[in-house]
Amino acid sequence: MQTVRVALADRSYPIYIGERLLARAELLTQHMPQRRAALITDSVVAPLYLEAFARTLAAAGVNVTSVVVPTGEQHKDWGTLNTIFDALLANRCERKTTLIALGGGVIGDLTGFAAATYLRGVPFIQVPTTLLAQVDSSVGGKTAINHPQGKNMIGAFYQPLAVLADTTTLNSLPQREVSAGLAEVIKYGLIRDSAFFAWLESNVDALIARDAAALAYAIQRSCENKAEVVAADEREESGARAQLNLGHTFGHAIEAGLGFGVWLHGEAVAAGMVIAARVSQHMGLIRADEVARIETLLERARLPIAAPDLGLARYMQLMGTDKKVEGGKIRFILLRGIGSAFLTADVPHSALAAALTTSVKHD
Amino acid sequence: MQTVRVALADRSYPIYIGERLLARAELLTQHMPQRRAALITDSVVAPLYLEAFARTLAAAGVNVTSVVVPTGEQHKDWGTLNTIFDALLANRCERKTTLIALGGGVIGDLTGFAAATYLRGVPFIQVPTTLLAQVDSSVGGKTAINHPQGKNMIGAFYQPLAVLADTTTLNSLPQREVSAGLAEVIKYGLIRDSAFFAWLESNVDALIARDAAALAYAIQRSCENKAEVVAADEREESGARAQLNLGHTFGHAIEAGLGFGVWLHGEAVAAGMVIAARVSQHMGLIRADEVARIETLLERARLPIAAPDLGLARYMQLMGTDKKVEGGKIRFILLRGIGSAFLTADVPHSALAAALTTSVKHD
Repeated sequence: MQTVRVALADRSYPIYIGERLLARAELLTQHMPQRRAALITDSVVAPLYLEAFARTLAAAGVNVTSVVVPTGEQHKDWGTLNTIFDALLANRCERKTTLIALGGGVIGDLTGFAAATYLRGVPFIQVPTTLLAQVDSSVGGKTAINHPQGKNMIGAFYQPLAVLADTTTLNSLPQREVSAGLAEVIKYGLIRDSAFFAWLESNVDALIARDAAALAYAIQRSCENKAEVVAADEREESGARAQLNLGHTFGHAIEAGLGFGVWLHGEAVAAGMVIAARVSQHMGLIRADEVARIETLLERARLPIAAPDLGLARYMQLMGTDKKVEGGKIRFILLRGIGSAFLTADVPHSALAAALTTSVKHD
Repeated sequence: MQTVRVALADRSYPIYIGERLLARAELLTQHMPQRRAALITDSVVAPLYLEAFARTLAAAGVNVTSVVVPTGEQHKDWGTLNTIFDALLANRCERKTTLIALGGGVIGDLTGFAAATYLRGVPFIQVPTTLLAQVDSSVGGKTAINHPQGKNMIGAFYQPLAVLADTTTLNSLPQREVSAGLAEVIKYGLIRDSAFFAWLESNVDALIARDAAALAYAIQRSCENKAEVVAADEREESGARAQLNLGHTFGHAIEAGLGFGVWLHGEAVAAGMVIAARVSQHMGLIRADEVARIETLLERARLPIAAPDLGLARYMQLMGTDKKVEGGKIRFILLRGIGSAFLTADVPHSALAAALTTSVKHD
């Protein structure tokens, strides 16, 4: 087992990474202020892990309430959140009852936001079971639900007490979700870690084949990168944390434009990172051969590199509600090369238009 | 103008108290990171103050969006919150746009929770226009909405950047709301300030008559008391802050039992404080003559001292969902005398039953 620490003063916490960690209740109970927990999961994860995991916790003396919600990004909304609140109230969960998110990014975001707001805040632990959640969404304290007008518009910064990433759970993932997770892994290489990007070029086939050692290293290195960024800028105030959103402004527009759930988040981010790279190329910031390396690696990870053709005007409109908008200007994360990202509001419309036009797939 | 500071390290903020402060935009603009604000108010306050206040802000160069929601505790729910989110998104409010709550406790709680969660947190200023909001709910960072199963069940601790208490606005209050505000004022005397309680005994008639000097002193002393308690225990972790809930466990049960909005919050708290005093008396903690002084002061403030007859079983059930419940035990704030409150879970059922039975009004 590897442990990566997220250093946030009195909100610091460990990320445990390793095989068969779901069987190790003591990793969680040591963080719980009361031997009482509500386990939140979805209809896909529940049949796979809920019963055994709840039994493990119960054997450690934890009184467990389970809540199963429908699966999918389209359910990351107030209705599902209210289902969770109803269950917590019906079971008289208290201020010291720990909410445990067992599942992917949607479950982590929903459960985290429920924990941030139930009784004005209760303890929270993340148990991510997808690659995307293990390398990205379970770490850093961003929680949210979607609004019809935009993704993650309502939420809170709320840190977990611990993250438990059991790599064994990745064996049950559909191949498409492994690829979606790799989009965020590749992102860390692109924004701040060129050595990791090169390692990924050598190991992407092993990752796709779910080689345990390769996955464990990719998760650890991703969490280390994310932990460093989050420690430097917890609430996305300095621009450092915004770099984690490479490809996400375009990606969110793709997800919202197609309707949440049509493309996986990681797929939209992959196509979004290609658009960001091409905007950077049009602005003379990154060379064509670097853009080609990015596209090649994403394709080898079986990710889309062409965005759906929503039309330039619709893309601009969808991006106008992005949370990074400041003073009416959309801010973008661009690349100065592989391993170096930055935040800017100074993007010529011509570069955006050219990149969006050349990046879309015409059916 | 008086200024009371709430000392919370990097979340410290001033409370400005005085006459005609709504005309002084500079008190607010100095705290705003962007000359952009969304003004949230309700259908009762809007006709009185919205236009002039919005004009004052606009004259100071602030781009103002106004949102008017229905008035009343029964609208402190997700539906109204979503109305606010829709307006913020439709007007493209950003992460540095300040939300300003103009109104009573309901507007402050709703707007504060909207500010805590819109785009994961935006700047927030309180402009309370009721006595209750000026002395209590606008200070300390508690924000929330109600859930059918209990009051303030969903919320966040989220501090404002400043509080502007314009005492001139109290002239437009219905008499019943002045009394409701005095319940919270009297509470500060009861829990930690016996000198203030004695001052209130001498000045309650002037307060009811809205004597400006008496009101200004009562608001200042209330805010000083609250600021000290909040600075010592911001997130209600040590028990110090819980003392501010004297009468509230019973009061919330009254409000929920009758249906939110039938009794004003302050009225329910007044009857709740009498129950708490009688429980304390049954436990031998406080003398009968002190309980009589409490009841007399509340009656002179034109507040109810008898609770509605919901039945003992229903009261116990309603109190079981209180946020102070820990390890399955309801915790109560009791009195060791006027000016000395404490939190305890050790309350004999017989004392509760006796106090509840003798405190209800039989029609």
